[in-house]
Amino acid sequence: MSEEHMKIRRSSRLVDMTYYFLERPYQLTPLTYFAKRYSSAKSSISEDLAIIKKTFAERGIGVLETLPGAAGGVRYIPKMTDAEARAFLQSLCDRLSEKDRLLPGGYVFLSDLLGDPKILREIGRLIASKYGEQKVDAVMTVATKGIPIAQAVASYLNVPFVIVRRDSKITEGSTVSVNYVSGSSARVEKMELSKRSLKEGSRVLVVDDFMKGGGTVNGMKSMIEEFNATLVGIVVFAASSFKGNRLVDDYTSLLSVEKVDVPTKTITVVPGNYMELL
Amino acid sequence: MSEEHMKIRRSSRLVDMTYYFLERPYQLTPLTYFAKRYSSAKSSISEDLAIIKKTFAERGIGVLETLPGAAGGVRYIPKMTDAEARAFLQSLCDRLSEKDRLLPGGYVFLSDLLGDPKILREIGRLIASKYGEQKVDAVMTVATKGIPIAQAVASYLNVPFVIVRRDSKITEGSTVSVNYVSGSSARVEKMELSKRSLKEGSRVLVVDDFMKGGGTVNGMKSMIEEFNATLVGIVVFAASSFKGNRLVDDYTSLLSVEKVDVPTKTITVVPGNYMELL
Repeated sequence: MSEEHMKIRRSSRLVDMTYYFLERPYQLTPLTYFAKRYSSAKSSISEDLAIIKKTFAERGIGVLETLPGAAGGVRYIPKMTDAEARAFLQSLCDRLSEKDRLLPGGYVFLSDLLGDPKILREIGRLIASKYGEQKVDAVMTVATKGIPIAQAVASYLNVPFVIVRRDSKITEGSTVSVNYVSGSSARVEKMELSKRSLKEGSRVLVVDDFMKGGGTVNGMKSMIEEFNATLVGIVVFAASSFKGNRLVDDYTSLLSVEKVDVPTKTITVVPGNYMELL
Repeated sequence: MSEEHMKIRRSSRLVDMTYYFLERPYQLTPLTYFAKRYSSAKSSISEDLAIIKKTFAERGIGVLETLPGAAGGVRYIPKMTDAEARAFLQSLCDRLSEKDRLLPGGYVFLSDLLGDPKILREIGRLIASKYGEQKVDAVMTVATKGIPIAQAVASYLNVPFVIVRRDSKITEGSTVSVNYVSGSSARVEKMELSKRSLKEGSRVLVVDDFMKGGGTVNGMKSMIEEFNATLVGIVVFAASSFKGNRLVDDYTSLLSVEKVDVPTKTITVVPGNYMELL
């Protein structure tokens, strides 16, 4: 084979392998798969992987991890660098502080941000960066607004996400329901999850869009217990300052809404406790 | 610069550029951006792009489109090959035909499939393949089960998605509401969309998980009219056979549930009319 031809083959492999890894976070692939796919020697594949690994690291794309041995292989672990995470959280603070986001009752309009695929990808990568090593089996959220966040995180962890519902649906089959106390209004409410959605013993990461009193998140904690599953962590997009006892204290927030001043229509948003982990 | 060093630089650029494009479908980037990013000559960047373009085409990843001129640049258009689409639709038919999916009342359990990020990515790429050229500005769905599909499609089209709700939420600000007739039960219901979610004149692609009588989709059509927006198309994950006049006839279905036989717990699922477009 000519040297020119070999260079073209390597180039083409690098592009295709990069695509392959990005589509399959955390999936372990044996080197023989690539050797066969490209009819190439394993030594060439190893060189390709070294290039991809170096570039992923240099560009903050993530870690390409090689596990040795017969059951080994290579897998892509999405990461966000601390610098990128800081810049992203700061940009979210700026977006959330926009005046016209303040709604009557002191609520903050978030639907545009949580309907933007670019922002969701970053949120997903950010959260997956932190929980990726913790063997998460499923991401859990409650309908409706937590769903896009759950999907984004699940996509980067490459695990399923499950949706707890406040309303009963006949299209879910048998469900498990739990009662929970809404933290902010102290009402008793009910949430349900389809029985077959979650396997016993699963390790579950809980995500939600907004936390005030923590009642909803606390409900999901009860749900996880009902399924004999394990809570790995709780991440909320934004937490508001809450006067009183929050029902949940061990959580990670990307953003913290510090002050909402309705007369001047001012919202003060700062990075949440995620920042302290950086 | 040594030839060896130049090869490494090209290899690294190819990996990073592939990542860059995959993260930014449809975004037009001028060649000068890459020349600056890598401190490379535009001629080298052009060669890189030719390699990526060829590999994307050969591997069915998508089209790398180069637009000439001062306002030109290069953009990635996600595509799924017809062969891949056929195989994917067939695999979905097999999954949907599984016996234990049948729920009381003849409903079909879909939540596991629509909570699987791998399947959602494929659904997103499949639908984006077909509607990518139609200048979609936003993807619309109705809560709850349509959301993951909307997010997946929006991600590959790189446009926002908006969520119509059947229940009122005080965290959405001013809303526009429409009444619609539920196709299967002939009840009059109401759906709402936050006013600021959708710009006037937007070109909107409607997606949903399941269509029976077409009432919900018809409601979204009314909603689009209320916003003086334009309907680009309607895509549902699965359509059921429906005795009676369906309220919507111009739609694309990925799957068609032909027969549900409760006594024998048999569901017959075949590819929908999307297949005819291949």
